[in-house]
Amino acid sequence: MIIDCHGHYTTTPGAHQGFRDAQLARLADPSLPEPVPADVSDDAVRESIENNQLKLLRERGGDMVLFSPKASGMEHNVRDTATSRVWARACNDLIHRVVHLFPQHFAGVCQLPQTPDGPLHDSVEELRRCVEDLGFVGCNLNPDPSGGYWTSKPLTDKYWYPLYEKMVELDVPAMIHVSASCNLNFHALGAHYLNADTTAFMQLVQGDLFGDFPTLRFVIPHGGGAAPYHWGRYRGLADRLGRPPLGEHVMKNVFFDTCVYHQAGIDLLHRVIDIDNILFASEMLGAVHGVDPETGFPWDDTKRYIDEISLPEEDRRKVFELNTRRVYPRLDAQLAAAGR
Amino acid sequence: MIIDCHGHYTTTPGAHQGFRDAQLARLADPSLPEPVPADVSDDAVRESIENNQLKLLRERGGDMVLFSPKASGMEHNVRDTATSRVWARACNDLIHRVVHLFPQHFAGVCQLPQTPDGPLHDSVEELRRCVEDLGFVGCNLNPDPSGGYWTSKPLTDKYWYPLYEKMVELDVPAMIHVSASCNLNFHALGAHYLNADTTAFMQLVQGDLFGDFPTLRFVIPHGGGAAPYHWGRYRGLADRLGRPPLGEHVMKNVFFDTCVYHQAGIDLLHRVIDIDNILFASEMLGAVHGVDPETGFPWDDTKRYIDEISLPEEDRRKVFELNTRRVYPRLDAQLAAAGR
Repeated sequence: MIIDCHGHYTTTPGAHQGFRDAQLARLADPSLPEPVPADVSDDAVRESIENNQLKLLRERGGDMVLFSPKASGMEHNVRDTATSRVWARACNDLIHRVVHLFPQHFAGVCQLPQTPDGPLHDSVEELRRCVEDLGFVGCNLNPDPSGGYWTSKPLTDKYWYPLYEKMVELDVPAMIHVSASCNLNFHALGAHYLNADTTAFMQLVQGDLFGDFPTLRFVIPHGGGAAPYHWGRYRGLADRLGRPPLGEHVMKNVFFDTCVYHQAGIDLLHRVIDIDNILFASEMLGAVHGVDPETGFPWDDTKRYIDEISLPEEDRRKVFELNTRRVYPRLDAQLAAAGR
Repeated sequence: MIIDCHGHYTTTPGAHQGFRDAQLARLADPSLPEPVPADVSDDAVRESIENNQLKLLRERGGDMVLFSPKASGMEHNVRDTATSRVWARACNDLIHRVVHLFPQHFAGVCQLPQTPDGPLHDSVEELRRCVEDLGFVGCNLNPDPSGGYWTSKPLTDKYWYPLYEKMVELDVPAMIHVSASCNLNFHALGAHYLNADTTAFMQLVQGDLFGDFPTLRFVIPHGGGAAPYHWGRYRGLADRLGRPPLGEHVMKNVFFDTCVYHQAGIDLLHRVIDIDNILFASEMLGAVHGVDPETGFPWDDTKRYIDEISLPEEDRRKVFELNTRRVYPRLDAQLAAAGR
């Protein structure tokens, strides 16, 4: 089977955004009534999925998507912890609805109610709720809740440890994923996302986080940011910093997805990175939609690029299915229980 | 001939750093006497170059380096404009000494006395001085003087226009290069530098700077940051933003260097980017020194990777010489005047 480990619910029914707008309006004017999450019908959820992600999944020959709330909509830069808590819960509940309606095709990955430098206990509890109560299989972790000003601690700082302890206890990985950019210097999709991937990777090279958490796992999306293209630089820097080789030091715990939207990039990823560390993904209906005029195919139809490599069957199965089942053991357990 | 367009004076005699230390000490304690730039002997300059950059240049078969002050030492985050002005001048004067001592092998590229959001007139004047009085052929432009907090305006903002006007008037390009990172999230060499490259490229995709300055030219170092690896993403984003194709929109004015420290990365760069936009560089004695244990050769001996591609002779000459002479016409004029 083919599992896409990186999809966001970018096509939510309008009422969900209406709730968010009402939340933000009330932050600006506390005299407004406290809004409640939108009452979205099953039909509205179904329609928003069937005409979009599920349609493309079927057209492109995929089976399953690890599905999380829209990344740019997480808006962790909003500092009010109660607002963030309620918003994350509403977003995750909607993901749960999708999973409930299409259990064959979607598994849940949750948004955490982070705030810039805020306490992490709400995130720990929301992770627990999503995994234990709703059956989610992972989470998205934002290394820069400020949205482009990078005022928080590096991922190797003890600030993050309560969350890591819960991730380890629940045996779920996190995808490192920032939200919208509030800094005019950074286009969200063309700079902020990739910079965050690159930054997170280098933080892990610098530190020794996996010495403290040997089973902690991160997926770095968008093909690992700049890391594979500059793999020699990172190998050299690890050496210069007196760190063990990358394979021992970080690559037992760090995985890159395949959201790289051209053949040469996918080729480099597979040439440089061990096959066990590559997880199929497209982020379809995400950053880059539309058709590449040079190929006549959608930019984000990443399966085509991988098919073009003609991987040995065993490697192909790793990238499309087995690696993701290994990194997300709760997904594997759910699939196995369903005989898949 | 082989021209390396990206080298920094990372091996300055100790007295030069002593001057900087005294500058910073006086900022902290204004009762201290105003320091004067170090009195470095010709022999000390000669020794610092002959045993380092020039030695490697000869060993590796190069002819010439476009040489600028140490990037991490620019420290544009220090807000005092007088300090920045005097420091840039001292750094550039030292580069001029190197060029004067080894005119066959070095050409000058200047540091600008930037400060976070400070006025640009000092930078404009220092650029003029270096080019007109000292014979420099380009400059380094820091898109984030804050050193990792990104508090300045994007490169497409009119804030930068006075500098661009002078660059156009003098017909010199700028290499986009940040300095040290003051933000613990960003390792300077493993995150901040590459993020700045990626960020600058996307700013240029978003804006229409070259509509206003058709002859303005930027070199984006470190192989263009993440851009070539994500070339499909950028082509798709340009389309999504309603911009012309990258070849028309930015790649008449933007060039990538070859500071990518492994074969697969250099291969991708040459596969994806037009040969006219690639400028040979190694940043030797820079970010990544030492020997790759897998190849037995130095990481930053980038000529080896390019030789491995077996480019047609015409393309090889473009990458190693002709593109740089085209992008830096004042260098070309100097070389031509010397019959080279």
